[in-house]
Amino acid sequence: MMQQAAIALGIELVVLTEDAGSGAALAVRESLDGRPDDGAMIRKLAADTDVVTVDHEVLDLDLLRELENEGVLLRPTASTLATAADKLAQKSAFSEAGLPSVAHTELNDQTDLDTAFRRWGEIVLKMAKGGYDGRGVWVRPDPTAAQGVLRRSLEDGRRLFAERAVVADLEVAVIVARRPGGDLVCYDPVTTLQVDGMCRQVTAPAGLEYGLRQRAIELAGRVADATGAVGVMAVELFVEEDQLLINEIAPRPHNSGHHTIESAVTSQFENHLRAVLDLPLGKPGLRSPAVMVNLVGSEEKVDPRCRLADAMAVDPGAAIHLYGKEPRPERKIGHVTVCDDDRDRAAERAWAVVAALGGDLRR
Amino acid sequence: MMQQAAIALGIELVVLTEDAGSGAALAVRESLDGRPDDGAMIRKLAADTDVVTVDHEVLDLDLLRELENEGVLLRPTASTLATAADKLAQKSAFSEAGLPSVAHTELNDQTDLDTAFRRWGEIVLKMAKGGYDGRGVWVRPDPTAAQGVLRRSLEDGRRLFAERAVVADLEVAVIVARRPGGDLVCYDPVTTLQVDGMCRQVTAPAGLEYGLRQRAIELAGRVADATGAVGVMAVELFVEEDQLLINEIAPRPHNSGHHTIESAVTSQFENHLRAVLDLPLGKPGLRSPAVMVNLVGSEEKVDPRCRLADAMAVDPGAAIHLYGKEPRPERKIGHVTVCDDDRDRAAERAWAVVAALGGDLRR
Repeated sequence: MMQQAAIALGIELVVLTEDAGSGAALAVRESLDGRPDDGAMIRKLAADTDVVTVDHEVLDLDLLRELENEGVLLRPTASTLATAADKLAQKSAFSEAGLPSVAHTELNDQTDLDTAFRRWGEIVLKMAKGGYDGRGVWVRPDPTAAQGVLRRSLEDGRRLFAERAVVADLEVAVIVARRPGGDLVCYDPVTTLQVDGMCRQVTAPAGLEYGLRQRAIELAGRVADATGAVGVMAVELFVEEDQLLINEIAPRPHNSGHHTIESAVTSQFENHLRAVLDLPLGKPGLRSPAVMVNLVGSEEKVDPRCRLADAMAVDPGAAIHLYGKEPRPERKIGHVTVCDDDRDRAAERAWAVVAALGGDLRR
Repeated sequence: MMQQAAIALGIELVVLTEDAGSGAALAVRESLDGRPDDGAMIRKLAADTDVVTVDHEVLDLDLLRELENEGVLLRPTASTLATAADKLAQKSAFSEAGLPSVAHTELNDQTDLDTAFRRWGEIVLKMAKGGYDGRGVWVRPDPTAAQGVLRRSLEDGRRLFAERAVVADLEVAVIVARRPGGDLVCYDPVTTLQVDGMCRQVTAPAGLEYGLRQRAIELAGRVADATGAVGVMAVELFVEEDQLLINEIAPRPHNSGHHTIESAVTSQFENHLRAVLDLPLGKPGLRSPAVMVNLVGSEEKVDPRCRLADAMAVDPGAAIHLYGKEPRPERKIGHVTVCDDDRDRAAERAWAVVAALGGDLRR
């Protein structure tokens, strides 16, 4: 999707990927074959390009710091990536900047866990590192299950923490694009619908009351400033009794911003490119309400490419995006966006297309 | 631009181009090096792909017919391409189908030319083949200049014809996308502004009176049917005293439809792919009025890539498209689209960005 934006601006992307058959590799002229922690290949990538950006959850941060010291222009910076990659580091950054996030405590032993349960009643357990799309997160475990998670994390030497289980009225995300000098733009807040920790549906705009919307936008900008974001950052927020709490951040074009390809004046992907190249940012304003539904592989492992004609026939106004990934359960292999002034109708239309593509229909 | 649409649908494009450094080649994974009349390379292209489409003005039609006979799936077909590539063949096709086009006569000698002048007063001379972007067309030549053109064309053995010089109130274009079985959709008519035969500005929608708009759309559909179009075809029309006259056709995604990337539910490029792959067509409806201005190289040969930051700063809501071509006078090297409910303002905004990019400002 970044390549679509790059083509318009005459920018050449070179992709480093460990899967030469991946959608990203197939979309660009030149790709390099390597893992995201392959220092030699990242050095080669940096030598071939003006700026290196990162769109991956699992990184070797020491290596990235080393490359930065060697002069590689990394945007976002290793420091921002390190903060984002470690949920405990995120918490510290938010707390230092006076930004509201969910109350938490690191768990070093059973006593810590007992205290967390006593204090909050229900908790969420999170690994500090390595989790995404619901992995590494346990929502409202009972004390026995929580004990098992803690024991395994201690055995593996992985840091674990407990958060108060938020009773969120809404889960909201704000996409921010920020330039190296601090200029930034925020997209309209969206609501996200999660199933088993994986985002299934995004509704834009969120339809928040005016003051709350403004506060969400302002908070997202402060989060981007506090973490030194360069490029696009997604800031995920809980709305709990009219209060905003930061859930987590992702320093890259984000699933919650995919709708902007069709719905916004400038897409998150174009603004990511503009930001990392230190070019003036494009207008983030919504041109239309929109709903995006992820195409998640189902148990039947239907290849959506074989269902394209059916899906197109269902709704000629839907924007279908296929990522060229093998269909597997719990894997995002595409998405569908429908722009429609009526957001409920947009959602029904998008889900109908996802159904025709053979996607998982849980929501 | 077709690659942007292909990426979304998970379709892989392979480009045959004689310039390995061209924007098209740089945007795709795989390109083949060859001229558009290189039979061996087209055969290789066909062997590697499901369908071959054509986006070039200069073709070897005998070769394309031969390839079709060998089983290459060519969309549009060689027959449609032959009709489109020969303006006299277009005229015959329109006349056989009872479709209105500008009165014309082929010129075989000075007597024919004299007759044309006597009949119409002012004329337009056109080469039957090989002209585009104002080349091969002479608008309102005086008799001496016309005589010179005729003499050269007779010497070169190139067919020439004269048309009545239309006093057009408007020049309008309609983009049609048509599937092999005949299903088609038409985009809203646009007005085009030409300087020296080259399109400079496109305004969408044209703002025609209702009945005229309907007739333009209906006529474009009939033209696509009559020429057996598959894929996108642009139908250029004159509006003269409330009458519609076909000017010419182009059997490919067309400059007059570039605005659809931002302004329409489904772009002309996506609908071209859908049509040539015989997939259900996407909705052509306009989401917003829009003006597209071509970025044409100026005498100063400014490289627009060096002006990108300036241009972005001028208008954060403009969509900039650079084709990665060397800037030369009279060469289209990009375009700018602005969606704005006020079309006059859209035009001023788009021209301001083109100015910042260093483009030719004649209009």
